[in-house]
Amino acid sequence: MFTRINKLQIELPKSTYADANAAAAVQELLGGKFGEMSTLNNYLFQSFNFREKKKLKPFYDLVASITAEELGHVELVTTAINLCLTGTTHEGAPDITPMQNGVDQRNTYHFIATAQTALPGDSMGKSWSGDYVFNSGNLVLDLLHNFFLECGARTHKMRVYEMTDHPVAREMIGYLLVRGGVHVIAYAKALQIVTGVDVTKMLPIPNLSNDKFDAAKKYEAQGWHRRLYTFSEHDYQDVKQIWKGTHPLDGGQLEVIQGTPAGAPIPNLEAVEETFAPGISYEEFLEIAKRLQKSAGL
Amino acid sequence: MFTRINKLQIELPKSTYADANAAAAVQELLGGKFGEMSTLNNYLFQSFNFREKKKLKPFYDLVASITAEELGHVELVTTAINLCLTGTTHEGAPDITPMQNGVDQRNTYHFIATAQTALPGDSMGKSWSGDYVFNSGNLVLDLLHNFFLECGARTHKMRVYEMTDHPVAREMIGYLLVRGGVHVIAYAKALQIVTGVDVTKMLPIPNLSNDKFDAAKKYEAQGWHRRLYTFSEHDYQDVKQIWKGTHPLDGGQLEVIQGTPAGAPIPNLEAVEETFAPGISYEEFLEIAKRLQKSAGL
Amino acid sequence: MFTRINKLQIELPKSTYADANAAAAVQELLGGKFGEMSTLNNYLFQSFNFREKKKLKPFYDLVASITAEELGHVELVTTAINLCLTGTTHEGAPDITPMQNGVDQRNTYHFIATAQTALPGDSMGKSWSGDYVFNSGNLVLDLLHNFFLECGARTHKMRVYEMTDHPVAREMIGYLLVRGGVHVIAYAKALQIVTGVDVTKMLPIPNLSNDKFDAAKKYEAQGWHRRLYTFSEHDYQDVKQIWKGTHPLDGGQLEVIQGTPAGAPIPNLEAVEETFAPGISYEEFLEIAKRLQKSAGL
Amino acid sequence: MFTRINKLQIELPKSTYADANAAAAVQELLGGKFGEMSTLNNYLFQSFNFREKKKLKPFYDLVASITAEELGHVELVTTAINLCLTGTTHEGAPDITPMQNGVDQRNTYHFIATAQTALPGDSMGKSWSGDYVFNSGNLVLDLLHNFFLECGARTHKMRVYEMTDHPVAREMIGYLLVRGGVHVIAYAKALQIVTGVDVTKMLPIPNLSNDKFDAAKKYEAQGWHRRLYTFSEHDYQDVKQIWKGTHPLDGGQLEVIQGTPAGAPIPNLEAVEETFAPGISYEEFLEIAKRLQKSAGL
Amino acid sequence: MFTRINKLQIELPKSTYADANAAAAVQELLGGKFGEMSTLNNYLFQSFNFREKKKLKPFYDLVASITAEELGHVELVTTAINLCLTGTTHEGAPDITPMQNGVDQRNTYHFIATAQTALPGDSMGKSWSGDYVFNSGNLVLDLLHNFFLECGARTHKMRVYEMTDHPVAREMIGYLLVRGGVHVIAYAKALQIVTGVDVTKMLPIPNLSNDKFDAAKKYEAQGWHRRLYTFSEHDYQDVKQIWKGTHPLDGGQLEVIQGTPAGAPIPNLEAVEETFAPGISYEEFLEIAKRLQKSAGL
Amino acid sequence: MFTRINKLQIELPKSTYADANAAAAVQELLGGKFGEMSTLNNYLFQSFNFREKKKLKPFYDLVASITAEELGHVELVTTAINLCLTGTTHEGAPDITPMQNGVDQRNTYHFIATAQTALPGDSMGKSWSGDYVFNSGNLVLDLLHNFFLECGARTHKMRVYEMTDHPVAREMIGYLLVRGGVHVIAYAKALQIVTGVDVTKMLPIPNLSNDKFDAAKKYEAQGWHRRLYTFSEHDYQDVKQIWKGTHPLDGGQLEVIQGTPAGAPIPNLEAVEETFAPGISYEEFLEIAKRLQKSAGL
Repeated sequence: MFTRINKLQIELPKSTYADANAAAAVQELLGGKFGEMSTLNNYLFQSFNFREKKKLKPFYDLVASITAEELGHVELVTTAINLCLTGTTHEGAPDITPMQNGVDQRNTYHFIATAQTALPGDSMGKSWSGDYVFNSGNLVLDLLHNFFLECGARTHKMRVYEMTDHPVAREMIGYLLVRGGVHVIAYAKALQIVTGVDVTKMLPIPNLSNDKFDAAKKYEAQGWHRRLYTFSEHDYQDVKQIWKGTHPLDGGQLEVIQGTPAGAPIPNLEAVEETFAPGISYEEFLEIAKRLQKSAGL
Repeated sequence: MFTRINKLQIELPKSTYADANAAAAVQELLGGKFGEMSTLNNYLFQSFNFREKKKLKPFYDLVASITAEELGHVELVTTAINLCLTGTTHEGAPDITPMQNGVDQRNTYHFIATAQTALPGDSMGKSWSGDYVFNSGNLVLDLLHNFFLECGARTHKMRVYEMTDHPVAREMIGYLLVRGGVHVIAYAKALQIVTGVDVTKMLPIPNLSNDKFDAAKKYEAQGWHRRLYTFSEHDYQDVKQIWKGTHPLDGGQLEVIQGTPAGAPIPNLEAVEETFAPGISYEEFLEIAKRLQKSAGL
Repeated sequence: MFTRINKLQIELPKSTYADANAAAAVQELLGGKFGEMSTLNNYLFQSFNFREKKKLKPFYDLVASITAEELGHVELVTTAINLCLTGTTHEGAPDITPMQNGVDQRNTYHFIATAQTALPGDSMGKSWSGDYVFNSGNLVLDLLHNFFLECGARTHKMRVYEMTDHPVAREMIGYLLVRGGVHVIAYAKALQIVTGVDVTKMLPIPNLSNDKFDAAKKYEAQGWHRRLYTFSEHDYQDVKQIWKGTHPLDGGQLEVIQGTPAGAPIPNLEAVEETFAPGISYEEFLEIAKRLQKSAGL
Repeated sequence: MFTRINKLQIELPKSTYADANAAAAVQELLGGKFGEMSTLNNYLFQSFNFREKKKLKPFYDLVASITAEELGHVELVTTAINLCLTGTTHEGAPDITPMQNGVDQRNTYHFIATAQTALPGDSMGKSWSGDYVFNSGNLVLDLLHNFFLECGARTHKMRVYEMTDHPVAREMIGYLLVRGGVHVIAYAKALQIVTGVDVTKMLPIPNLSNDKFDAAKKYEAQGWHRRLYTFSEHDYQDVKQIWKGTHPLDGGQLEVIQGTPAGAPIPNLEAVEETFAPGISYEEFLEIAKRLQKSAGL
Repeated sequence: MFTRINKLQIELPKSTYADANAAAAVQELLGGKFGEMSTLNNYLFQSFNFREKKKLKPFYDLVASITAEELGHVELVTTAINLCLTGTTHEGAPDITPMQNGVDQRNTYHFIATAQTALPGDSMGKSWSGDYVFNSGNLVLDLLHNFFLECGARTHKMRVYEMTDHPVAREMIGYLLVRGGVHVIAYAKALQIVTGVDVTKMLPIPNLSNDKFDAAKKYEAQGWHRRLYTFSEHDYQDVKQIWKGTHPLDGGQLEVIQGTPAGAPIPNLEAVEETFAPGISYEEFLEIAKRLQKSAGL
Repeated sequence: MFTRINKLQIELPKSTYADANAAAAVQELLGGKFGEMSTLNNYLFQSFNFREKKKLKPFYDLVASITAEELGHVELVTTAINLCLTGTTHEGAPDITPMQNGVDQRNTYHFIATAQTALPGDSMGKSWSGDYVFNSGNLVLDLLHNFFLECGARTHKMRVYEMTDHPVAREMIGYLLVRGGVHVIAYAKALQIVTGVDVTKMLPIPNLSNDKFDAAKKYEAQGWHRRLYTFSEHDYQDVKQIWKGTHPLDGGQLEVIQGTPAGAPIPNLEAVEETFAPGISYEEFLEIAKRLQKSAGL
């Protein structure tokens, strides 16, 4: 089971301008083959389908707890896309064509299918697919896959970072480069424990340190790259048997934290009248409020 | 953010025989257009993308908290599929063709891609797709969609129930018919509050009461159909403004419960040597155990 | 614009037994790459997008009028699938598993997504796709495509005929082999008129006469292979400039008929209670009847 | 069966300039999940697969007759896209790059796959899919789906209207907002008759009247929003039992018209030499004309 | 079996400027339904699956040998795309957004998934699919398909030629128009031999001679349009029984050449540091060089 | 460029019985995500798109030469599928339903779309997709991917081996387990040379030696697991700098062979009259033979 907390993993800056094509590119990090939907669902299904959960508990605990963190990453990328999109169009009667700024943007689904918010699809509008989930059940092969997947995801994040300097996108990618880096190392360590091969010596892949990215350096300075959270109040404690010793790149002490980061408020996305979202007039709102307050339903 | 609890929503019976084609049919309830992956991701994205979360907090809280429950439903269906598959093949050297029972089964991905476990795909092996997510941002339209989606999902559950009497599948579907019924009514009530139209009078769709299904009747007798859980320790409390009054079908008192059901142990899936899952020999296990216990990594 | 007539192109025999796998195979002729959905939509889009409709009116008229016939072919294959499926399951309370016969059938969508009726997909359950529409706008190339498409469609029909002897499937395929043969020749003649090359000399492709198929021979004996219908009360008369002379295979006189064949009654598909279709109880029916008869709505 | 009339439902204005990206956006209304291909095919398959056509004739008649109207809507959107595209490129020898204006446009299929005409795909070039057809066979559920589908389609139309002021696109969308509105209400009324719930009170969804759209207001002024056509010379007359009483938004008298609207001429799409469409030289045309006029074929 | 030669079929000019949208359009000729991936894989599978290879050896030899040439065409289009993309972005630290030029380009996969190189997808980023392979096994039908496929491919090449004057794209398309023309005629001749119908009289389709394209005229002047290569040292010699006589358009003598064209050097694609490709630092390179030179592995 | 040799890599046994469902399962090894189409196209595109081919020549040579071997693997799996399918149906007039054995088989495309031959799709009939190609351009990441891909492919081969004991399937898989093993080690060695990490110590993945598979043991006894072929007459010689030293599993001496294995005859697939393949009657054959022998075409 999962429970939900009404917080975002980190605080995102207030967006000061819209950049719909940056938002379209960032979609790759959400719904692309190497996006957060993919890391989430790979680990979700691998943990559900894990054979010998008890005997191999530290490995199960690792995959299971990272899954929960990935849900928050999906949330974070989604929110960043929403903030990058905000303000692309303007209010006005339909006949003045208030959404004309949408017609030349790369991802028209943002304007027609959603109210200028994020979609479970990639930078070309292709929907995320269950095809992206790999789960052989063989422990070494699945860990190897996850290690590869995280390195691929890191590469895509680095490239999208280089494609846009929108402050919201940058902040989000900076943070995720660091947290993704934790997952790269965690799977490398798991592989080492299972096979005896020192996979961490390959890192980083690609060969560019996170601290070359200003927005990531900040989070590394705060030690985020050395902490693994269980994202559970009580469970998954045996990740400690994997996440231990020192960080292979900066030598700092690794640390497991039971639970989640403190989190930050979720930005309130305001109404965008020209999209009819949420599409509730003042009068309707008053009616709704009355019905909500009745003690026994309608 | 989300956190994870190492429990299943309910206890599933021990599987006493394998039925791979039943498992294949049950996949529709997991990765089909109306499967749990769809309800999960619809509400996940709708809650992330919700415009005017504060002003319309009860509705946001409703979608957000049901999302967390759906994660547990995905887990439950996945586990049921795993249990239905267990035992289809037998152990043995490759040359005695130990997986020959797989070759005529409907879903060969179960045998080649996974270690006889579940996939994010449907009853024909088609992968779940982000295309199945609807999120217009318009409150009425999204609620109407969710109401329709839950009625469609209920129909599919009823039909798969009629297609197989495998005890694990039956138990799982019985429970989900009841919990899905809660969501049907919750969205109906939300629609009523927003529009004033008494949508619950349409129910049930299809017109067959849950209590015609033995495996569901049990859960209704326990009152599961009258309880909405917040699936959050502290948040989403305003679902109380929607989930209130009486149950439209049996007239019982509706109740909101902060948090989750008690849950039950997750079945341990045993190794299936002929699939190489997890593929760890006794000697390797001893080596791994040693490495896990070292204090500072490798 | 199109208008509709509540008739089927021919009468289908009453189905005396169910064969769900035959129905699944027949789906290829409906929603496969060479199925009736493909011929329909190719000609639909080609006729809408036709450049120089006036100057090249006979060719436009040909494509436009065949489009309307194809709508009836989609109807006919759909109906045949429905009849082949009827009776696969039996009535009964859900707990007696009344749809257990569905769980081992090849196409489970027939049992879960529909009420044992047809889908716009192929023999493997893959949905029909707009990718199957070809429309270059170049007259010779589009005619060449259509000629190829009809020959491919004929091949598929011949093979499905050989795979099942279900009387409903046979009757339908027999008729469509003949009508499809008319379209093969029509496009061959159009190509001849445009390019001067005597394409009809290639026929039949594959090299097996329709009269080797008992179910088709009957329709040829009635002359269906020599008649082209305009499927329009007044329009598309210039097909006469293409459909003229003699039949290249039997030398009979070709004939254009303004309008449609006489048609036959559409079979009434009975309720299948275990699928909840249509899912209207006797009491509900009485209520509905009352509301239908009120003079001014509700 | 269907028959065809060589007319468009309404007259579209002559296009005075090309806007290929507007055309690309309009594709969503043709081949998108909520486009006219979807409404058409949902009703086509629902009417073919309808169980108890006789007992529930008014509902069957409703779905069946709207299907025929949707064919004309597909035609109308297709034609509008064609007109918006016309003139994007210019004539000239290949070496002067006469189609260079195509290379930066959003939908390159318009320039490579077609002769600057419409495709059965959406605003991102994704092909229409049979996945978009819903047909459970359960009457209430199918009507609920159709009601939702029409509301979703209306939302998309409203947004595309706001994205482009191209006169052809506007005229087409204005008309379809009105006709789509008829279908919204028709399905709402059908739902009311079956379930007793007054669904029309939810309307309009989204909450913005058609008369806020100049191009739609014109058609409402002419009463198009109060008329349901049978699109059949003789059949489907029992829609009168559903389409009766007053219009829920303006109170006007509802009316069923046997047959179709008068219609208007289909615009002749001229040759576009740089696309080789239709690609017939003057000399070839003379040869063709001769062959067409021979009395007995070639 | 196949062997490889480290050469390109022709020399491509050095690219003097980047045009990422031209590269995006050219992708249609690589991974589109009528791109080189399609011709390659159609002939690959048709030759593998050919029934009666011995009895119908000349036809088998034709399909088999063209397959090998198509591999080189895939290589050529891929290389051209790479050259068109080169230089779109610039070197620099991630924080200066060195890939910002990528964010507004049509195909963002070029920038995120690859290191500004080609993908097996089309001009809208849609991946090539095995659906594009046709292989009925019926000789006439497969030849007819191939003839149609090559005509369609020619049409697409002509249109992309008209969309961009990038020198690399032009050179590549010019050559392929000529070689594709050889395949059109080869399949036409094969059809003639099998059916007796003089299909070459339809040519060219579309009706515009290759010599209207400067970049193609050059290759025709060198006689490339009259030569069929076996692309095999010893095998497939019976293509001579098909590729014989005179060229249907210019009357020149046809010629079969055992083996391949001379070929030209493959351009060396330089490192693009901002994409981390190949991502090997100078120090790493020295280490690698040492390991490569050790005599017995590591 | 590539050239073709009319031989198969090894001799396959004569098929003594048909097993269409075994053939359907084997399709996963051809057109599945981890099938030979995937290894082929990954290396094809990686070699075409390789940055710094000269500086990193041994790695380019490795990927380029394996590509050519993979073409032969695609051929081998295709041929094995064809042999497993042969004999499923029987000859006879259409009315005796000669292909009735096809209607219950898992993959109906084998019977309708092809003449009982192989398709570029997987064990569920899903077509191979360009989505399966990974090509980041980063050398370490691409090698890591290839290493993972080959391990995944090995897992799938092992499982299909366990699912069927059809002699043709077994022979083919035995050989490919050995050759795939070579590629696993080759990419492991390449990774070691680039990163210094001894990846071969992870092997085998899954942890079961090839010699546990009788059909593979034979090939290992012949030393196939120690030889890397360049599949080129002259090029790609620098693979010697990677493929050197001893085999990590059996300690044997590794060897690079310029060129290809000797190869074996390609089985002649006989006509299957009931599929109309090749569909040439005796009389037609005589006509064709005459036309083929004319000295100057038709």
